[in-house]
Amino acid sequence: MLRLGPLAAAGRLLPAGPRFGPPRPSGGRVSLSRSRPPGPVGDRGLLARQVRAAAGSAGGGRSPVLKTPKGTRDHPPAHAALRDRLLAAVVTCFKRHGAAAIDTPVLELRETLMGKYGEDTKLIYELQDQGGELLALRYDLTVPFARYLAMNKITNMKRYHVAKVYRRDNPATTRGRYREFYQCDFDIAGQFDPMIPDAECLKIVHEILSDLQLGDFIIKVNDRRILNGVFAVCGIPENKFITTCSTVDKLDKMPWEEVRSEMVGEKGLSPEAVDHIGEYVQLHGGLDLIEQLLQDPKLSQNKLAKEGLGDMKLLFEYLTLFGITGKISFDLSLARGLDYYTGVIFEAVLLQPENDHVEEPVSVGSVAGGGRYDGLVGMFDPKGRKVPCVGVSIGIERIFSILEQRVEASEEKIRTTETQVLVASAQKKLLEERLKLISELWNAGIKAEVLYKKNPKLLNQLQYCEDTGIPLVAIVGEQELKDGVVKLRVVATREEVNVRRESLVEEIRMRTSRP
Amino acid sequence: MLRLGPLAAAGRLLPAGPRFGPPRPSGGRVSLSRSRPPGPVGDRGLLARQVRAAAGSAGGGRSPVLKTPKGTRDHPPAHAALRDRLLAAVVTCFKRHGAAAIDTPVLELRETLMGKYGEDTKLIYELQDQGGELLALRYDLTVPFARYLAMNKITNMKRYHVAKVYRRDNPATTRGRYREFYQCDFDIAGQFDPMIPDAECLKIVHEILSDLQLGDFIIKVNDRRILNGVFAVCGIPENKFITTCSTVDKLDKMPWEEVRSEMVGEKGLSPEAVDHIGEYVQLHGGLDLIEQLLQDPKLSQNKLAKEGLGDMKLLFEYLTLFGITGKISFDLSLARGLDYYTGVIFEAVLLQPENDHVEEPVSVGSVAGGGRYDGLVGMFDPKGRKVPCVGVSIGIERIFSILEQRVEASEEKIRTTETQVLVASAQKKLLEERLKLISELWNAGIKAEVLYKKNPKLLNQLQYCEDTGIPLVAIVGEQELKDGVVKLRVVATREEVNVRRESLVEEIRMRTSRP
Repeated sequence: MLRLGPLAAAGRLLPAGPRFGPPRPSGGRVSLSRSRPPGPVGDRGLLARQVRAAAGSAGGGRSPVLKTPKGTRDHPPAHAALRDRLLAAVVTCFKRHGAAAIDTPVLELRETLMGKYGEDTKLIYELQDQGGELLALRYDLTVPFARYLAMNKITNMKRYHVAKVYRRDNPATTRGRYREFYQCDFDIAGQFDPMIPDAECLKIVHEILSDLQLGDFIIKVNDRRILNGVFAVCGIPENKFITTCSTVDKLDKMPWEEVRSEMVGEKGLSPEAVDHIGEYVQLHGGLDLIEQLLQDPKLSQNKLAKEGLGDMKLLFEYLTLFGITGKISFDLSLARGLDYYTGVIFEAVLLQPENDHVEEPVSVGSVAGGGRYDGLVGMFDPKGRKVPCVGVSIGIERIFSILEQRVEASEEKIRTTETQVLVASAQKKLLEERLKLISELWNAGIKAEVLYKKNPKLLNQLQYCEDTGIPLVAIVGEQELKDGVVKLRVVATREEVNVRRESLVEEIRMRTSRP
Repeated sequence: MLRLGPLAAAGRLLPAGPRFGPPRPSGGRVSLSRSRPPGPVGDRGLLARQVRAAAGSAGGGRSPVLKTPKGTRDHPPAHAALRDRLLAAVVTCFKRHGAAAIDTPVLELRETLMGKYGEDTKLIYELQDQGGELLALRYDLTVPFARYLAMNKITNMKRYHVAKVYRRDNPATTRGRYREFYQCDFDIAGQFDPMIPDAECLKIVHEILSDLQLGDFIIKVNDRRILNGVFAVCGIPENKFITTCSTVDKLDKMPWEEVRSEMVGEKGLSPEAVDHIGEYVQLHGGLDLIEQLLQDPKLSQNKLAKEGLGDMKLLFEYLTLFGITGKISFDLSLARGLDYYTGVIFEAVLLQPENDHVEEPVSVGSVAGGGRYDGLVGMFDPKGRKVPCVGVSIGIERIFSILEQRVEASEEKIRTTETQVLVASAQKKLLEERLKLISELWNAGIKAEVLYKKNPKLLNQLQYCEDTGIPLVAIVGEQELKDGVVKLRVVATREEVNVRRESLVEEIRMRTSRP
């Protein structure tokens, strides 16, 4: 089931061309001669002075600061091409599971986002009050989806959404954590028989991580109801469930002793209760563990835990039918940070993010996560009508960081354009002929470029093809024009053939169609 | 050269299914029976109460306001599908011309955007000062591109960028004017022989508008140097060039008399100078007009105007080679609002946006625009080093408004998913078999769905296919399982054939591949 390997994702490889890595110029690099000065209006005119003055007043007289905001980055062509292919692979999987796309604004009313993210609410970017509504940037795609469902009174829907979200988090860019980043979400809303949509979400994570060949991974699964049942039987008061949950969630980053002391110290829980919790949350396994807990004298008496365990058993049955239980771990330490989950929760982590070629491996942690949130839509409905939902979010930026480093380490070259042919000339004074020919090619749907020079040297034109990976050159010359042919040169082999002008489009198509 | 007609853009048509128009539920609409209550954690638990309290305090105790921010909108699946195809058509053209993709953050430092948009600077969305850098939402893709070039010291590049931009403008949503909207930009940066890249930008506009079959259109072309030359020979002081330019720009929306009185009244220009300008800016034509103005006793003495007219003549020569002068009008009233243009400017308008089927035609105005901005990159460079640029922006939202209304009027149905087959059962107790089969199909790359019910009725499963446009149903039953076959039903014709299980994937592929 290997639909997109890392090399396929990186596009066709080039024998030479722009390196993946720090941004470098791309496009007609060979014709840099200053053939004319820039127009005087922008040069010495009033506009330039006015604009400089304005920029100066904003920047306090300093020369302009050239950077992107903290925690954000530009994507140069090689990045953008790799990421487009990665996103396309994820979307292909979402479509394979019958999801429709929606889009919602990056801006939401502030009150839409408030009270949905617990402690993380402080990480929301707010817009300045410029008159009118108070706005904020979306923090995830889940709350806007719930708002969308409630606003349009939609009671069932299977949708995907690939878009940027914003968090004023402490960026850790080497680990792929940014303040602006893509989320790729797939969600199923509606009242259905238990665990069927939940199982499909896990199948999707499994498909995507397998397809991308990121190395071995495990998908941890738990249920908020089981966690809450554990807290209850351990004697935690109900009003401390959420805060206890956030602390348990740190178990993937710190050892139990530290989590324990935070619970006892900061959160003020009794040491006995906490030790009791410790016995549970360090458990992980499969169907056997579920059976064991269903027999647990205390837990089996708790209604929530029993429901959660029953559903977990059903989920494992479906995952067995899907043939993916080998990568699933029922893990009682998994808690997930966000407040809105109400049932099954899950998180995928890579087990071997290290790449042989990479000296300092990227540590990426979780690469996908999600769960069931049956209460969120009801929060937006004036009458509190519920729409149960379950969904998954693919951590595309972290995956991208891995692929990025892998490509860099392997010194692969990524083509950033898809140009099939460069229209060139061997002699001078043929610009008009080049423009006429390229126009014919464009009109026939051929991807074609021409150097923006009146009399480029043939060598420079060929070098441009080498640099940018263009496979063919269509050369016009006096003799070819007389004969009604175009000389077609294959860049890689230097083979040259004369092609009748009326057959050129077909010949280019034939020679550039993928095998 | 009709690569994407409006029907092709709207995707495959459906005999039945969700209407294009106001958002409606989509996806498994047939299995709505409440088979279980939502989980109690979200239902009566602490979380729900906490969250309600928080939402209440943000919203002043009212029930939550269910809306998107002013001037923004959600895109339900039918919109999103149509828009994805529209964007894909534009990107295809950009790639045909050899452009590479880049991406830049939605957030920019405020000082990056200040002093670039003249009077429109007030329309920039600013973020609240939450500590750290002062930020704003990008107003267009051009200034971030210039910032990107300067920051990375790139001196030549051909790039496209499709992304959302933000303007605190007065929204006119019926005319496709929003506060959040997509821009599709193609730009060529670098020092080249004159007018070759500029001509390619116009060719791109011509290709896209022709491909989309939006009806007849005209591309108005002018040059800021010609306009400034006109202002100079009419006796306008240099420090009033920009403000005069903004007023001339209104000529497409108001008659000359009103523009004249704004110039004399608000802008304080002399009536004689203004009347003199009036003689020029009401001119439009082709090569003949260029020749006429080159002979104009005053204008031909002005250095800027002469340069501009010389380049305009050259541009028309190249456009003749491209065969597109029929749609080009040299129009001296075209001024373009933005400050940063320094040379050629252009704007495409639809001549017949009305559609026969539509009672109230959408008035959309300009659907593409652009021009040369040789000074912008230099504003970001600490040493003021220039990188001449020319680019075009496609007004995708306005085009989308037209297509949207056209689809609505024609009552076409748009498929919002690509599902090839629904895995169904005719008898009860076959959920496990359905899940096993669909898992096989997904693993083979088939787009497949299953209803999330243990025992759905066959009729409901068939109805789901009718509603959502799924062409095939794979039916498992006791007998089929025994025989090692699957019954494949063609929804449109009701034809049913038994297919051996091992041939099913191939059979589905064959029956759903486009002709």
